[in-house]
Amino acid sequence: IDAKAMAEARAHQDRLTKPRGSLGVLEDVAVRLAGIAAVCPPPLPTPAALAIFAADHGVHARGVSPWPQEVTAQMVANFTAGGAVANAFAAQVGATVTVVDVGVAVDLPPAPGLISYKVAYGTADLSQGPAMTAEQTRQALAAGAGVARDLVAAGHRCLITGDMGIANTTASAALICAFTGRDAESVTGRGTGIDDAMHRHKIEVVRQALPANGISPAGAVPTGPEEALRVLAAVGGLEHAAIAGFVLGAAAERVPVILDGVIAGSAALAAAALAPDVTGYCVAGHRSAEPGHAAALAHLGLRPLVDLELRLGEGTGGLLAQPLVAAAARVMREVATFDAAGVAEKKP
Amino acid sequence: IDAKAMAEARAHQDRLTKPRGSLGVLEDVAVRLAGIAAVCPPPLPTPAALAIFAADHGVHARGVSPWPQEVTAQMVANFTAGGAVANAFAAQVGATVTVVDVGVAVDLPPAPGLISYKVAYGTADLSQGPAMTAEQTRQALAAGAGVARDLVAAGHRCLITGDMGIANTTASAALICAFTGRDAESVTGRGTGIDDAMHRHKIEVVRQALPANGISPAGAVPTGPEEALRVLAAVGGLEHAAIAGFVLGAAAERVPVILDGVIAGSAALAAAALAPDVTGYCVAGHRSAEPGHAAALAHLGLRPLVDLELRLGEGTGGLLAQPLVAAAARVMREVATFDAAGVAEKKP
Repeated sequence: IDAKAMAEARAHQDRLTKPRGSLGVLEDVAVRLAGIAAVCPPPLPTPAALAIFAADHGVHARGVSPWPQEVTAQMVANFTAGGAVANAFAAQVGATVTVVDVGVAVDLPPAPGLISYKVAYGTADLSQGPAMTAEQTRQALAAGAGVARDLVAAGHRCLITGDMGIANTTASAALICAFTGRDAESVTGRGTGIDDAMHRHKIEVVRQALPANGISPAGAVPTGPEEALRVLAAVGGLEHAAIAGFVLGAAAERVPVILDGVIAGSAALAAAALAPDVTGYCVAGHRSAEPGHAAALAHLGLRPLVDLELRLGEGTGGLLAQPLVAAAARVMREVATFDAAGVAEKKP
Repeated sequence: IDAKAMAEARAHQDRLTKPRGSLGVLEDVAVRLAGIAAVCPPPLPTPAALAIFAADHGVHARGVSPWPQEVTAQMVANFTAGGAVANAFAAQVGATVTVVDVGVAVDLPPAPGLISYKVAYGTADLSQGPAMTAEQTRQALAAGAGVARDLVAAGHRCLITGDMGIANTTASAALICAFTGRDAESVTGRGTGIDDAMHRHKIEVVRQALPANGISPAGAVPTGPEEALRVLAAVGGLEHAAIAGFVLGAAAERVPVILDGVIAGSAALAAAALAPDVTGYCVAGHRSAEPGHAAALAHLGLRPLVDLELRLGEGTGGLLAQPLVAAAARVMREVATFDAAGVAEKKP
């Protein structure tokens, strides 16, 4: 991202009619937005577009979720009918909703706002071997990047990641283990809400996934894009790969991308391992209740904007952050300087 | 607030197409909104109105701020011209901005959006004796309540507190000491940004204010409305009293009021001491960088929605929280139930 525009943005912040630094974290967001667009003041990040990438997971068969796999397809229907929480939040912040089938286990009937980039009918079981082939992974990455490009071409100036896939917090935990070197126990959470016994079992499944895929179990993180791609294929999901592509696509278009929760955080780890500069285009929308999410954000060096114990996914946490990001940009465009407003400055 | 509507709201949350509890703190906000309106689902908290109460402070003469007192009036002009951060944030969330002169030290020229309820030309120095008379305090309370009533009569369904007054974090710290029993050192912050020497002096001024007004310096918090009014008059500001009245007015109208930062938090302590039930109508918009703010929120039992190290005031933190509050309400009104959407529930 552009250093000159960021320096200009920092200097401009200090001339505005407010005490220096008084907008806290939002001043950093505004500077980042200037760097992303390579212009100061940065454009408003509107209109915003949420893309919900939906896929199923072979690891579901291991009993890591209390929800039946059919719920992935049922929730896709709920999204396209406008009945999910993501739809309500999108309406609140004025974002469009696009649902992308990258790997739901069943064929889905056409619906408004639903795009098919189906790569497979779900992944293989990541605890036994690679969840995806290299080719499937590349296809899902390309699908995500293509959706980002199309949404920007349609006029959107802020992209928001969303996901739907029963059992996808298991794949997220495995990705976070592999990319951060953390152990399974510290990053595997209760997803949508599981009991102690299922949680212990889920940790065990995540722990098995690494050696089953020839990934060193503790501390050795993948280096280089080739190894990153192999890890993503091994323990990721089709929606994780698509979200990684979506993030890369947003960066290519110089548009900010707001990351939702642990699914997006783990996908962003893969994207950053493929292309380290991509992190500069990411805004961490929120911090979810999943323990692995905090680990992923710390590894990426991103500070979440919203922290309200959400654990729903769909893009809900990213949507809630959008007005905060827009507010940060508006300050740069609309607030008067001390000189222009005739306001006295603080005494030295 | 209405227990029956709250119980209905809790039950309704659990039927919606999302894992139970997955919206975290926003589920509590939605339940609270139902209780406030005494109906489930609760109405959307829109349109929203920000009221910025402006006043000056005798304690400014003690050298507790590096900003000249004229900045209060200059910022009022900035608000009415639309050039302040509060204006940019209000535009972002679709809130109207009303500026209320309850005690600016100079006469202000008429301006669009500016209302005069001037009670005095600033307060007396709270470190030497009472900042306000009982009559001034009552007038400022009535002004705030009147503004709340008028904004609701004009159709607003969410009120947001704002403030402007150079040196008003000093009065806030003194109020927080008096109402929570905390010591001056732990609740007195750096306001808009002061150096170590001025910070030490500011703590000393706050410490002097309590005995100078016959307020027991540690631990004994005022009981009963009469004593609450006396404390508010002694160490508060005209905008603090007006905001306390605004909060009481919002409660009387059964409309939620989003509290901004430490000024609003200290004013809400006074409002809650006058009428304990009023806290139920308050949503803590954010947690500011001022240490006293966290103490005030803990005493009130409120959890802030936004936590981004803001320390600007004006209502900026309250404005940022408005879309989060609206999103919580929208969930209750727009999200499908498991039955209606044909989505399978989690296995027991």
